[in-house]
Amino acid sequence: MTSSTASKRQKTSSSSSEGEGAPYELLYWPGIPGRGEHVRLCFEATGTPYTDVCNASKSNMSQLISLISDKNTGDETNPPTLAPPVLRHGGLLISQTPNILLYLGKRLGLAGAEGDENAIYHVNQLALTALDGLGTEVHDTHHPIATGAYYEDQKPEAKKKAEDYIANRLPKFLGYFERVLEAQASRGGEYLYGGQITYADLVLWQCLDGVSFAFPKAIGGLKKSGKYGKLFALYERVKGLEEIKEYLGSERRMGYGMGIYRHYPELDSE
Amino acid sequence: MTSSTASKRQKTSSSSSEGEGAPYELLYWPGIPGRGEHVRLCFEATGTPYTDVCNASKSNMSQLISLISDKNTGDETNPPTLAPPVLRHGGLLISQTPNILLYLGKRLGLAGAEGDENAIYHVNQLALTALDGLGTEVHDTHHPIATGAYYEDQKPEAKKKAEDYIANRLPKFLGYFERVLEAQASRGGEYLYGGQITYADLVLWQCLDGVSFAFPKAIGGLKKSGKYGKLFALYERVKGLEEIKEYLGSERRMGYGMGIYRHYPELDSE
Repeated sequence: MTSSTASKRQKTSSSSSEGEGAPYELLYWPGIPGRGEHVRLCFEATGTPYTDVCNASKSNMSQLISLISDKNTGDETNPPTLAPPVLRHGGLLISQTPNILLYLGKRLGLAGAEGDENAIYHVNQLALTALDGLGTEVHDTHHPIATGAYYEDQKPEAKKKAEDYIANRLPKFLGYFERVLEAQASRGGEYLYGGQITYADLVLWQCLDGVSFAFPKAIGGLKKSGKYGKLFALYERVKGLEEIKEYLGSERRMGYGMGIYRHYPELDSE
Repeated sequence: MTSSTASKRQKTSSSSSEGEGAPYELLYWPGIPGRGEHVRLCFEATGTPYTDVCNASKSNMSQLISLISDKNTGDETNPPTLAPPVLRHGGLLISQTPNILLYLGKRLGLAGAEGDENAIYHVNQLALTALDGLGTEVHDTHHPIATGAYYEDQKPEAKKKAEDYIANRLPKFLGYFERVLEAQASRGGEYLYGGQITYADLVLWQCLDGVSFAFPKAIGGLKKSGKYGKLFALYERVKGLEEIKEYLGSERRMGYGMGIYRHYPELDSE
C-alpha cells in the first residue's frame, strides 16, 4: 500500500467512525496472558499492528488503574470500565472479552465469510461457550468460594470443584466442540464455522492451551480416549499457522502465571 | 399499521435476510423465568409478537430436548446448541443469552440511537457485565461446587460463597452500575446508555429483580444505605413502563422457582 492510499483509507474510515484508522491498543494486566490473550491472538493471527499498553512500559499501568478506578465515570461516549481487558481504538473504549472480540471480528476478517450476515451470531455463540466453559469455569476451580481471597484459603472446596469440573464439565464442553467440528468436517470444513478460521477458533485454541496447562493429566487422558480427535487436530492446526507459530516463539507470548489458568498438581487428575 | 403496509414491510425484510419477517420463537425450560426471561423482556418491552415455544404446549419440549441432545450436530448453517435459551427466527437458530440479545437489540430498537454505530458495543458490554455479576455469580452461590449436583449436597460451601457474594461481589456490581447511571444523569440521561432504554436496562432490571428475590435482606440493606439511589430508581422506572407493567401483571410472567434465582433464607444476610 502506498502512503497516499494509506492516508486515503484512513480518511475514508474516519468519516464513518471516529476510531477507524486509529491504532489498536490493548490494556490488560501485564506479565500474564489471561483474558487479554484472546485479544492478542486476533491481532497476531491477522498480522494487525497493536500496542499491548501495559506490557510496553511499566509506567503505563497507571492508565489501566485509572480506567478501572471506582472514581472513573467514563466520558462523553464511553461508560466506565469494570475490569480489563480494555480495547482503546481512537475515542472508543470497550471492555468485556467477548465484546472486544465482536468488535474486532468483522474488522480483522475473523467473523466468517463476507456475505454471511448471520455468521457473527454463530461465531459469537461459539466464542461465548468456550469462554464460559473452558475459561471462567476453569478459574472457578481454584477460586470456587471467593475471587478476592487466596487459593490457599479455599483449597478443600477447590479440590471438590476441580473434581467435578474434570469429571463432568470438561468432557461436556470438549464433546460439544468435537460435535461442532464433526458437522463441519462432513461438509469439508476444518474450522468451527463456515470453512474458514474465525475468532471462535482462536478463543477455543487459547482455552484448550490454558486448560492443558492447568490440568495436563486430565487433558492427556481425554486426548488418549480418542473421543476428541477433531478438537485436538484443530488445536494443532491453529498452532501450526505461520503467524501463530511466529507469535508463540516470540517474547510477546507470555507464560501462564497466577491468572485464569494455574497448574496446581493437587487439582489435576490422579 | 394497515395490512398492506405490514405485508410490504415483511417482504422488504425477507429480501435482505432469510429470517427477517419470520416469527420469533424462544425455546427455554418451561415454568421458570431463568435466562429466557431476558429474551422475553425484549419482546414484551417492545410489543413484539413471539412464541414461547415450551410454555405454549408441553409437547413442544421435545423440540428443545432434540436441540440440546448430544446427538444433535446442527444443520447446514447452524452449529448445534449446547444449552437454552435458543432463539429460532426463520432458518436461524442461535443460543447464548447475550448473543440472542445482540441479535434482537438492533432489530427491536433496543441497542441505542440509530446513528450511533458503536452503541451496540457499549450496550453489549453493560449487558454482559450484568449477566456475569448479577446472574451467573448468583447461580454459583447455591451451586458453588457442582452444577449437576443438589444444593443440599453443597450447603456449607454455598453459605461461604453467598457470604462473599453479598459482602464483596454484589456491592461491586451495584456500585459499577450506579456509577454508569450517575455519569448518564450528569448529561440528563435516565438509562444506562445514550439517553434511551436499551436491552442493557432490561437485563439489569431482571437481574436486580432476581437478586432481590434471592437475597431480600441483603438487597434491603443495600437499598437503605442510600448508595445506589439511581440504580433502584432505574429499577422502578423500568417496572413502571406500560408494556412491562402489563407483562408483569400477566400470566406470561412466571414466578421464580428452582432456577438461577432461588430464595434460601439461610444464604441471605442475617
